[in-house]
Order: sequence, then structure tokens, then C-alpha cells
Amino acid sequence: MLNFLNDYEYGCIPEIIDLMEKVNNQTFSPFGKDPYTKWAREIVQSKMPNTKVDIHFVYGGTLANLVMVRSALKSYESIIAVDTAHVTRGEAGAVEATGHKIVVIKSVDAKLTKKTIREAYLTQMAHPGHMTYPKAVFMSNATEYGTAYTRKEIEDIRAVCDEFGMYLIMDGIRLGSALMSNGVDYTLDDIARWCDMFVLGGTKYGALFGEAVCISNPELQTNFRFAMKQSGAIFEKGWLLGIQFVGLFKDDAFYKVAQHELEMADQLQKLLLELKYPLYIKSTTNQIFIYVTPEEREYLKKYVLFEDWEMNEYYIAIRFVTSWRTTLEEIQQLTVILKQAKQYKKN
Amino acid sequence: MLNFLNDYEYGCIPEIIDLMEKVNNQTFSPFGKDPYTKWAREIVQSKMPNTKVDIHFVYGGTLANLVMVRSALKSYESIIAVDTAHVTRGEAGAVEATGHKIVVIKSVDAKLTKKTIREAYLTQMAHPGHMTYPKAVFMSNATEYGTAYTRKEIEDIRAVCDEFGMYLIMDGIRLGSALMSNGVDYTLDDIARWCDMFVLGGTKYGALFGEAVCISNPELQTNFRFAMKQSGAIFEKGWLLGIQFVGLFKDDAFYKVAQHELEMADQLQKLLLELKYPLYIKSTTNQIFIYVTPEEREYLKKYVLFEDWEMNEYYIAIRFVTSWRTTLEEIQQLTVILKQAKQYKKN
Amino acid sequence: MLNFLNDYEYGCIPEIIDLMEKVNNQTFSPFGKDPYTKWAREIVQSKMPNTKVDIHFVYGGTLANLVMVRSALKSYESIIAVDTAHVTRGEAGAVEATGHKIVVIKSVDAKLTKKTIREAYLTQMAHPGHMTYPKAVFMSNATEYGTAYTRKEIEDIRAVCDEFGMYLIMDGIRLGSALMSNGVDYTLDDIARWCDMFVLGGTKYGALFGEAVCISNPELQTNFRFAMKQSGAIFEKGWLLGIQFVGLFKDDAFYKVAQHELEMADQLQKLLLELKYPLYIKSTTNQIFIYVTPEEREYLKKYVLFEDWEMNEYYIAIRFVTSWRTTLEEIQQLTVILKQAKQYKKN
Amino acid sequence: MLNFLNDYEYGCIPEIIDLMEKVNNQTFSPFGKDPYTKWAREIVQSKMPNTKVDIHFVYGGTLANLVMVRSALKSYESIIAVDTAHVTRGEAGAVEATGHKIVVIKSVDAKLTKKTIREAYLTQMAHPGHMTYPKAVFMSNATEYGTAYTRKEIEDIRAVCDEFGMYLIMDGIRLGSALMSNGVDYTLDDIARWCDMFVLGGTKYGALFGEAVCISNPELQTNFRFAMKQSGAIFEKGWLLGIQFVGLFKDDAFYKVAQHELEMADQLQKLLLELKYPLYIKSTTNQIFIYVTPEEREYLKKYVLFEDWEMNEYYIAIRFVTSWRTTLEEIQQLTVILKQAKQYKKN
Repeated sequence: MLNFLNDYEYGCIPEIIDLMEKVNNQTFSPFGKDPYTKWAREIVQSKMPNTKVDIHFVYGGTLANLVMVRSALKSYESIIAVDTAHVTRGEAGAVEATGHKIVVIKSVDAKLTKKTIREAYLTQMAHPGHMTYPKAVFMSNATEYGTAYTRKEIEDIRAVCDEFGMYLIMDGIRLGSALMSNGVDYTLDDIARWCDMFVLGGTKYGALFGEAVCISNPELQTNFRFAMKQSGAIFEKGWLLGIQFVGLFKDDAFYKVAQHELEMADQLQKLLLELKYPLYIKSTTNQIFIYVTPEEREYLKKYVLFEDWEMNEYYIAIRFVTSWRTTLEEIQQLTVILKQAKQYKKN
Repeated sequence: MLNFLNDYEYGCIPEIIDLMEKVNNQTFSPFGKDPYTKWAREIVQSKMPNTKVDIHFVYGGTLANLVMVRSALKSYESIIAVDTAHVTRGEAGAVEATGHKIVVIKSVDAKLTKKTIREAYLTQMAHPGHMTYPKAVFMSNATEYGTAYTRKEIEDIRAVCDEFGMYLIMDGIRLGSALMSNGVDYTLDDIARWCDMFVLGGTKYGALFGEAVCISNPELQTNFRFAMKQSGAIFEKGWLLGIQFVGLFKDDAFYKVAQHELEMADQLQKLLLELKYPLYIKSTTNQIFIYVTPEEREYLKKYVLFEDWEMNEYYIAIRFVTSWRTTLEEIQQLTVILKQAKQYKKN
Repeated sequence: MLNFLNDYEYGCIPEIIDLMEKVNNQTFSPFGKDPYTKWAREIVQSKMPNTKVDIHFVYGGTLANLVMVRSALKSYESIIAVDTAHVTRGEAGAVEATGHKIVVIKSVDAKLTKKTIREAYLTQMAHPGHMTYPKAVFMSNATEYGTAYTRKEIEDIRAVCDEFGMYLIMDGIRLGSALMSNGVDYTLDDIARWCDMFVLGGTKYGALFGEAVCISNPELQTNFRFAMKQSGAIFEKGWLLGIQFVGLFKDDAFYKVAQHELEMADQLQKLLLELKYPLYIKSTTNQIFIYVTPEEREYLKKYVLFEDWEMNEYYIAIRFVTSWRTTLEEIQQLTVILKQAKQYKKN
Repeated sequence: MLNFLNDYEYGCIPEIIDLMEKVNNQTFSPFGKDPYTKWAREIVQSKMPNTKVDIHFVYGGTLANLVMVRSALKSYESIIAVDTAHVTRGEAGAVEATGHKIVVIKSVDAKLTKKTIREAYLTQMAHPGHMTYPKAVFMSNATEYGTAYTRKEIEDIRAVCDEFGMYLIMDGIRLGSALMSNGVDYTLDDIARWCDMFVLGGTKYGALFGEAVCISNPELQTNFRFAMKQSGAIFEKGWLLGIQFVGLFKDDAFYKVAQHELEMADQLQKLLLELKYPLYIKSTTNQIFIYVTPEEREYLKKYVLFEDWEMNEYYIAIRFVTSWRTTLEEIQQLTVILKQAKQYKKN
């Protein structure tokens, strides 16, 4: 069975499993006070030479997001996010469970825009004290629909944040895909400058687990570990998280994996267009979305794992994701199956 | 200056202020263990002869809403409500501050429908454990846009609740207006039967303050006062709340006030139609909404207090509210001003 | 039946009920934007000429306390309070419900001391990030056991707060009793200077309801109303709260009531000593605590309402509270009964 | 440098690292829907043949504890725990951050007793609705001070829980040490029967990470994964957690490690007694506590890593912990150093 279901269904890249074996008999201080965590911080920081960031490693994405929100906001403050954001609809109310409202706005290509942010802010503040105080813009980059923000878009959003005194927080669980995306000309260094706080995701790029919370804004750096502990987010054997990021960044495996995922996805999207499968959305990252007929879907289900993205009375949209383990051979096999699906007639 | 701004800008009806004076020199057990609270409970219960309800008095609406949600839900459960609901956009994130998400759905005439509830529920439960568990439908009746639910609509919603094991909770801060609304054929007794828990509002009908939380569902009756105390919602001199509801219900002042507000509003809406002011929404309660031109608005502002309901680049909608103190004379005066506004030309 | 149960079992002083009647037919802006609220703020501020405070009126004490904590603290911050504090054991977990821990320390005469605060702070910070970050000292003055802090004690506590960067928050639900207490030489003006934020209670001094939250620290003044609304603490007919404090402060009824309560209590405490009732604690405010035998208690129960403060296998302690309605005649009657109780033999 | 600092400063046992390598190139369904998680559940369940438990794997202890509390309790309910419990003083307010109070009682040998639980419950319920509703007893076994509960003690506590309708929840992060403790005659099967919900810890027994939450009470089994997701506690590559518990339980490594830690600790405690070091508390698990003089401490610091447990003006208590990697040789070396420390004179 071909597998295009997700990018977190595999173990880790060799660099990481090798390190884990190597150090398994060693002794380390717990809670992240070990040399690997230190080293990981230094390498990640070196990718952002112009901004001093505090870096904390957390095992997973939802936990990283909720700790960021909890640590940055006062009780009556809210975040602004789009309806399609993971934080809005994929985290079982984790943000609300910390007591904060998500002011939800309708996305354009799964993105926030300066216009929609501005409107959301002004609406909340039209009757100060009756609604929440929007204190942070919370954006996913890459988005959950495979798009990546352009430099111009992020700069515009940063400008709105500055205008209204809001933080810019980025869920970068697939930030690697955004950075490698065609047409994207910014780097991690730009991200660190634009955002007050962001997640640099490891899990989707060949780590076993682990996301790095990077905090650029000094006023958000204070006491972050209290918020982590309060949320159960301090890893006992913290060096394991350090090792993930040493493995990802010491020889740029992170970028190579992201690049590989993107090339595979790019190939796939081109082939899909040639095969006349209509795109649900134009992706520039490692998640590809197409419309299929019920027959096509039925045929594909026999040979390929993929996610049903949206199914309703009008259409079916499905998603393919490429991972660090996806090969060109698999793309070719998928192409054959997709071709056959076009001919398939349901009995 | 004529005042059509709101229905809570006045003191209380004579029945209540007289009682307050009368008992001011008496001594009472605090925290609601007094004869007036007991009496108030009995009279309110008598309006719902077929359903045994627990009744608790709370000083205000937002507090009543948040206590209901907090007491009824487990941490991971959410409520379903419309975008226009007070609980969604007028309470500064009070529900989220108790840790619960509001699953927001787009309203039709400020109402929930069985269709939109069903969709919202199924979407949340499509990937169980990734989204919240919707455990209650939270509806305002009358709505914030002056509409009232019909018997059929509520019965349909109750049926969806039963199908999915959800509670039906009603924010009845203006329930009096709904009950007196033209075309509404249900009573408080029906409400008690349909809802698991609801607010019966006093403030908008001539009380100084106070809303009654009525709990029909025995499993929600247990320990409600713990949730109240935890929220700071136990009134020390509780008899004052009892007195409000004795005053409202012992000779049906509640219904008379609601009826009066409705008649005044009805008159006003008819006159507005005669004057060719387009309705923003067809109201059947004491809140009336029309579109006005910038010139009309400017003229009205000189002589009348009202609320700007929605102002954008396309149109202006304003709201008039009638209260227990509104007189026919005031309606007539407003009519004259509205006529003049039509002729007004900005210099 | 004589009533020494509490100081909130009566209506309000004449100054207030008269005002309420007088304005009942008037129209006011809701939510505290009315002339009475403005006036009340001005009079209360005039009692603290040397410190500019923001003043917000809330209907009750638990709600005032939880809003203060929620508005002042970040998620991982805690408050330090004694085991006997109302906030610790009389509010059903209201502080914890806002997500904050109370670091509880054993009281000395129901008071915090600089020594116990210092120890509590240092313990929490011994392993930074494993325990909470204590950000506020939360003290009741007068205490729940009838004692009042001296100038020296508060100045010492303020010094510890300054040393560790903590706020000083005061639950002054019975602040009037502290201010009038024998041996207390400070004023409301000192309180405003010492505390970052405090409650000035009205309910116990002849108001129908209402406590004033006074905020001296400018960094805590910002956005306080958001925290209020989020907690359901914005009164719709806000002028009613304004009226309470106008009534209490325009001719110093507040101080007179507090003084009267104190004199009555003082008389009572002296008589109790003469009658050889052992004091449970030496009170300097309007709450008096004595030990009684089971027989004495049984006799007293027949003629007097009072609270059983502590009952265990070793002793019984009971509490008498004087109120603005307590008369000298009642004290004399109580004395007689207390004398008889000494002679009473259980059959 | 000898290391007796903790039992979580090492990698994992060979059984686990081998499995991790073996499966690193395989593909798995995420979120715990993989064969290793299934297998792990089956083996763990097989240790509790008489009680059907739901088993969920969480990466760490604080997170496990907060998810248990959040999922089991309604908003106004509290847990009863001792002052020395990790949940009380080592988790940065994680329980309170879920909105629940910990009713703290003074421990006897770091333990709860039926007497102290009963008192705590009755005190909270003396004025129902003014304090919290204690709904769960939360006990650590083994305790944080190296003691383990006896069968009798747990049965007594269970009886109090039954009497008052409370859940019994166990933080078993070091449950292995309790089960292997001298004098303990109960098994995991008994624990499952006594507790409504408990943590079976893996990290302290040679896992890289991971604790199992076991739920015996069917009414607490429902929807637990919602509470997990809401807390960021669903591991993406869930098979890694499964592997930890397969490694620990398929050939009983868990019990062997626990047994080994205990034997090492037992040896050490005996030697300490021979050397006349006074015990701070009599331990029956893998944590050993002694009093030392400042000179002894100073000397030990040069050669051994250990934790300063309590330091005050009266005494110094320190802790040694044995781990799965501790050898008899290390115990012997430590003995020599401890002997030398006795002779050491500070210059």
C-alpha cells in the first residue's frame, strides 16, 4: 500500500537514531540542562544571526501552542486566528482550556491578511470591555492547506501588529516547508525578526518528536519555563529533545528533508495537473489537495493511503502528503494508479 | 432627549421599590436562605406547573451564563452557539475563561437551526478527540436581533439535542419578550420542559437587577451552588434578589411589562414601515432595527438616544429598544422626528 | 431572638435607601457611566488625597477578589495568603478557578508576617520553574479573626513585597473595622500608598451591596474592566453601586458605622472578660470570639443567634458580630443572657 | 563523579533502544493507533487480570497528573493531597491551572491517612457551597519521601473514598518501587481494583519516557482522549510510547529494574545505618534520606552527585536515589566516601 497519508508516520532520520544509540549509556542532567540541549540551542540560534532568541524544546505541537498562548497573554486577552488553523479546529479547545478566546476570522487561502486582522481587531475593540482584548495574531506558516505566506504578506501582518500593539506568534510546525517553498525568499532569520514567538517544528522533518519554541521578544522570554512546567511540558530526559535538533540542524538535515518533501510534492502536483485532476488549492508545500469523483476515490482507496480532506454533497477533496521517506518511485507508482482511477468505473 | 437606547436604563417598577423600602429595617438570613427568596422560587415554579425546576437567583446575565456553562460541562466539552449570541460576542470571553470553547455557527435571523447544529456537531465529532466534544446547545431567546424562536424551531432543536445527547441551555435574558411575541404560543412551562437549564431574566422587565437560573434536568441540579460560589455569584443579602422576583411575578408584572414593551415596539415598527424606513430585520420583540442614511442618522442623533448597530462602508443599521417606561407619547414624538429626518439635508 | 450572627443580615442605612427611592424614576447610562458612579469615585478618591487610584465597583466580595487576582497575574503566578483567609477557605476555590495557586502559609493571629511571607517566597523559588512564581501577597485587613494589622506590620510586608517584586493586594471587605480599630493610626490614604490594589468593602457597613476595588499601581489599572466583564462583574444598572458609595462616603456614614460597630463590639468584649469568658483571640474589630462550654452554648442558642466558629473534641469557640444596627440595649440584653448561661446546668 | 542524584538521568534499557532501532524504518499510524501501542496495552492489562482498565500513554508525569484531574472533576470539585506530594509542590500549579483546588493536608511519613482525609473532607463540607467539593483523593505511591503504602493503609483510604463518594487517584510515577518494597504484599492487580485511575510510571524504570494512565472506573473511561488532546498530551508518533511499555513489560524488565533499584537502595541504607548516619525518614524504596553535617555534606559534594533535600538553620537532609544503572561497585565506592566524610574536618 502506498502511503501519502501524513509526514509523521515514520521513525527518524539516521542522524538522529544514531545519536540516540550513541548516548544511550551516558548520564545527563535532566530537564534540559545537558550539553545536547545546549548544543541544539546554539545551532538553531546560529540560523538566526541577527536576533537573539530564547529556545525551549517541547515534545509536541499542541502543547507548544498552548504554552505560548498561556505564557504571553493576560486572562482577558485573546488571539486572532483563521478558521482553518490547527489551533482553531485541531486541538480540542486547548487554547480555550487556558482561558483564552480565539477570535476566528475567515481565511483567504488558509491565511490571515492585514485587512481581516484589522477588521477583527476593530470589531473586538468597538465596545472596549464588552469583547476580549486581542493581544496576539496567531498564524500557521506553512498553513494547514499547503500554502506559505510571502514576505510581503508577513510584513503587512507585522505592521498591523505594531499598529495595534499585538504580538505575532507563528505556529511553524511546518515552517521548514514554508522556508523551502517556491517563491519564498525569507529565512529563519527573518522569521525571528518578524515574530515575537514562534514554533520551529521538528516532527514533520524527520525527528522522532520535538518542536522548538523560539522567543524573540524579550518581554516574553521571562519565566517561560514556569508556563512550561505548569503545562506538563518539561521533558525529564531533556537531552532527547536536544538530540533531535542537533540531528536536524548540525548538517542541515532539516533543510534537506524539507527540500526533499517539497520536490516530491512538486512532482506530484505537476503530474496531477497533467492528469487533469482539479486542484482544491494551489499548494507550494508538501501537502497537495485535489478534487476527486466518488469513483476515483474508491479506486485510489484500494492502493493508496491518503486523507479525505472534505466530503460533502457537492464534492470530495483529498490530500496527499510527502514525507522525508517518500521516493520518486512512489510518486511514479502513484501516478499510474491515478491514471487508472480516471478510467475506473464503479460496478 | 428621547431615549430608545436600551431597556436597562431605568430603576425598577413600583412593586419592587416598595417592597425594598418595606423590608429595609428587617433582618434576614444571608445567601438566599430567607423567606423572600423562598417565596420568589415558589411563584416562579408555579408558572411551570409540569416541570420541577431548581431556581437560583444571580445578579446579572453574563455571570448567570458562565455559571451555567461551568456547572454543566466537563473540561473538554464545548457549547454550540451562533455568531450573534451575547455569549459569543458580548461577554468578553467569559465562557472561554471557564475553559470551554464556543463552537460558533453562522446564524439565520440570529437563530440556531437543527440543520446548523447538526452540521456543527458532526464536524466536531468527525475526528473524535481532535476537536471538542459539543455537549450543549446554547441559544438566546429572544435573540439579540429581536427575533423569537417558534415552537416548531425549539422542538426541532430539542430533537437534535436528544439525538446527540446534548443539553439545551437557554439565555433567556429577554425571555419575557419571546413569550409575549406575536405568533409565539408557548409558555414558561414549555421552556422548562424543553430546556435542561435556562435563564429567566428580570433586569429587562423592570427589576433593579437579577436573573433566575432555572434547572430542569436533575443531573444538572446537583451542586449548582458550588459553581455559583466559585464564580462569586452568591449574593450576600440574597433577599434582595428574592424581592425582585416576588415583585415581578406575584401579580404578573413580568408579563405585563413584557407585553407593554412589545406593544410599544410593535407600534414603532409599523410606523417605521409606513415612513418607508427599511427594516434591517423583522422584529417580533422589543428591539427594532432599521437602515438609515447618514443624513437621517445625523438628524436623529440630535433628538434621540439609540444604538448604532452596524456601520460599514455599505450601510448603517440602528436599533431602538422599548422599555417598561416607554410611553405612547414617546413613540409619537419619535415618529415626528423620524419623519423630519427623512426631509433633513446635510449642509 | 437577639442577633449577633453577622453584619450583613440587614438592609441599608437610611442615606442609601433614600437615594435609591429618589432616583428610581430617573434614567441613567448603564455599566457605570452615570453621574452617581462618577460622584462615588470622586468622594472615595478624596479620602486618599496622596495617591491617584482607579476605582471600580463590584457587587460582592468573592467576585472582587477573583477579578483582582485574574487581572493582576500571569498564568503561572501565584498569591501568598494565610490558611485562615476568606480567599483561602471561604470562596469555594474561586482563585484556583482562575487558574492560580494560593501558596498557603500558617497564620499568626490570622495574619501574614514578613517572616512567613519571606519563607514562602523562598521555598517556591528554591527550584525556579518547578513551583509557582509568587507574584502577590494577598492579605485580609481586618482579618477573619477580628484582628487588624498595625502600621509596622503592613510596612514590613510592603518591604518584603518590594524586595521580591511582589504586589500587595488587600481584601478590605472589613477595612472600615481595621481603620477604626483601637491602636490603628493609619488611614485609607496609607492603604492606597501601601497596596497595589485593594477592596474597600461596603456591604458590612450598611450598604445593600457593593465593594470598591481601588487600584493604586498604574500597571494594574490598564484594562481592568476587561477582566471584570470576563468575570460577569459589570453591573448593568451601575448607578446603584455608585449610590451605595455616595451614601456611605458623602457624610462619612462609612466611618460612623464602622466606629459604631467597633464601640458595640468593644463593650461586648469587655463584658465578656468581666464575665470570665475566655477569649479565643483578642479582637480589635467588630468580630468577637470566645470559648464556651457545651452547657453555655446550649443556653445561648435559645436566645441568641451567633456562629459556631470552631467545634472539636477539645473546645468550642463561638463568634459574635456587631452590625450597624446593633444597639446598646442589645448588648445589655446579651450580657444578661451570658450571665445566665454561666449558671445554666444541663438537665 | 558518582551519581546518586536521580533515577531519570540515563537512557533506556537495552530492550527498548533495540526495539526503537528495529522499527525506525517502519511506518505506523500516528496518535497511538499502531500495533505496538496495542501490544503494550495488552501486556499491561495482563498484569491486572481481575480488572478491565483503559490504558493511555502520556510522555510525562506532570502531564499525566493534570489530565487525570481535568478529566475526572467538575469545575467546583477539588482533590485532597498531602503537602509533600509532587502534585502539591513540584508541578508549578499544574492542577490549579486546570481550575481545581488542592485541599492540602499535612502528611504523616509523606502519606495520607484515613483520619486526615476524613477531617479534610468534613471541613470542606462543613459549610456546603462555601468551600470546594472534594471529589478525589490523590495519593503518590511510592511517596516522594521513599515510603510505600501498606495494603491496610490503602484499603482504609479506599473505604473513606467509598464512604464519601470520592475517587481514589494514584500518582504511581514510582509505583514499581512500591510494588517491590519490602513488606508490600499487593500487586498491580490490587492497585487496579483499589484505584479509580492511576499512573503506572515508566520513566523511572528504564524507559526513555512515558507513563501509563490506567482507568479502572468505567465512568472515568469515557472521553479521556478529549482531555488528553485538550492538554497537548496526544503523542504524534505514538508507537514510541507503546515500545517503551512493550520493552518494560514483555519480559518483566519493569519489575526487575524496580527490584534492582530497591536492592541497591537497601544495601545503601543498611550501610548508612552502620556508618551511623541518622535517617531523615525510613525508606522502603529507591530513595534514601539522611541527615548530614555541613562538613559531611561538603566532603560528599566533591565526589558524589546527590540532592539537598532540606536545608535550614537546624539541619541538613540529603537524598540518594538508585537507578536501573546503579551497580554494587558504586554502592561500595559511595560507602568509602561516606566513611571518609565522617572523618573530614573543614579547614
